Amino acid sequence: MKLYHSPLAPNPDRVIFFLRAKGKLEAVDLEEIQIMKLEHKTDEYRDISPFAQVPALVLDDGTKITESRAICTYFDNIFPEPNLMGADAKEKALIEMWDRRVELMFFLQFATWFRNAHPAMAPLEVPQSAESAAKAEKAARRMAVKIDEHLADNEYMAAGRFSIADITLYVTCGFCRVMKWAPHKELANLGRWHEAMTARGFAG
Amino acid sequence: MKLYHSPLAPNPDRVIFFLRAKGKLEAVDLEEIQIMKLEHKTDEYRDISPFAQVPALVLDDGTKITESRAICTYFDNIFPEPNLMGADAKEKALIEMWDRRVELMFFLQFATWFRNAHPAMAPLEVPQSAESAAKAEKAARRMAVKIDEHLADNEYMAAGRFSIADITLYVTCGFCRVMKWAPHKELANLGRWHEAMTARGFAG
Repeated sequence: MKLYHSPLAPNPDRVIFFLRAKGKLEAVDLEEIQIMKLEHKTDEYRDISPFAQVPALVLDDGTKITESRAICTYFDNIFPEPNLMGADAKEKALIEMWDRRVELMFFLQFATWFRNAHPAMAPLEVPQSAESAAKAEKAARRMAVKIDEHLADNEYMAAGRFSIADITLYVTCGFCRVMKWAPHKELANLGRWHEAMTARGFAG
Repeated sequence: MKLYHSPLAPNPDRVIFFLRAKGKLEAVDLEEIQIMKLEHKTDEYRDISPFAQVPALVLDDGTKITESRAICTYFDNIFPEPNLMGADAKEKALIEMWDRRVELMFFLQFATWFRNAHPAMAPLEVPQSAESAAKAEKAARRMAVKIDEHLADNEYMAAGRFSIADITLYVTCGFCRVMKWAPHKELANLGRWHEAMTARGFAG
């Protein structure tokens, strides 16, 4: 199977880190799509990913899967160990709950801030909105504090063990560099958690 | 177990419709939270749902689960028939892919438009942003057309059969009423699909 990705872009990183945490990065052929060169907007790539999203996974039977978390779901089912998305109904729900909180309230807010504020995003986000950027920045900074509070009492984000929710948060912390922000250097619990995650090696 | 919900609010509806499609609505005790009275902002409710989100599910062992899709994941695992989130790795991924496309590109864009434009939302969305509303309206309307094109060739949203992706889309179409918009009355394929979904009865 073939995984279309873009180095340093957060959604592809989420899948790459997930695969590396499973020890299965070698199971896919990697093909790079250069977003800043708009390679994801070509007709050829849209035939694989109709909404021009990266990453995309093409199975050997030709099935095309986009959406980073859906691709992780596929891998968690075909490569069950180590389990990263929950081993029973309750774990699956708790891990998805925290993964969604991180993605919807932190990652997506940060992405909205970045896309609407950074000069390099002007060709991709038309028109950029300073109002949207300001609201999203505030929400992202507020959620970083909430996550730091959660990590004061928890070694991991969800269900008392390492999971996709940790990977999604780690990717988001790294992504924040594009606005010269490092929330894990400002917030002590997030910093302690971030060091432990780096030591796991899934980020390469 | 106890499900905290709000009638006519889209995220709670997603869970209620999901349970009704499983024939399991009677398995939960329902308790109503009135969002317009800010009942979700009380300390008592925040003890159940720390981010003041509705719905929330409290299991008999005291475990608290928020995020509508995480609650659906719990129910799909404890009430396996009819399966609504995928029976194998590929189906799970394809259903999650379409469910996310509907939620992230249609539902969330519509919600951003509504929260930033509707006078009734002013106390909840501070400050409202006309710029954000305009961008999100455009994105929501564009995605409705893309979904209509998808339904030209597909009876269901994902994996060739009824799933949570259909429920999420149905909830979104209903939610659109708050901006006096009925995408399923403007777009023919979406309209045909919507009639078939209504006939299933999961919306009550």
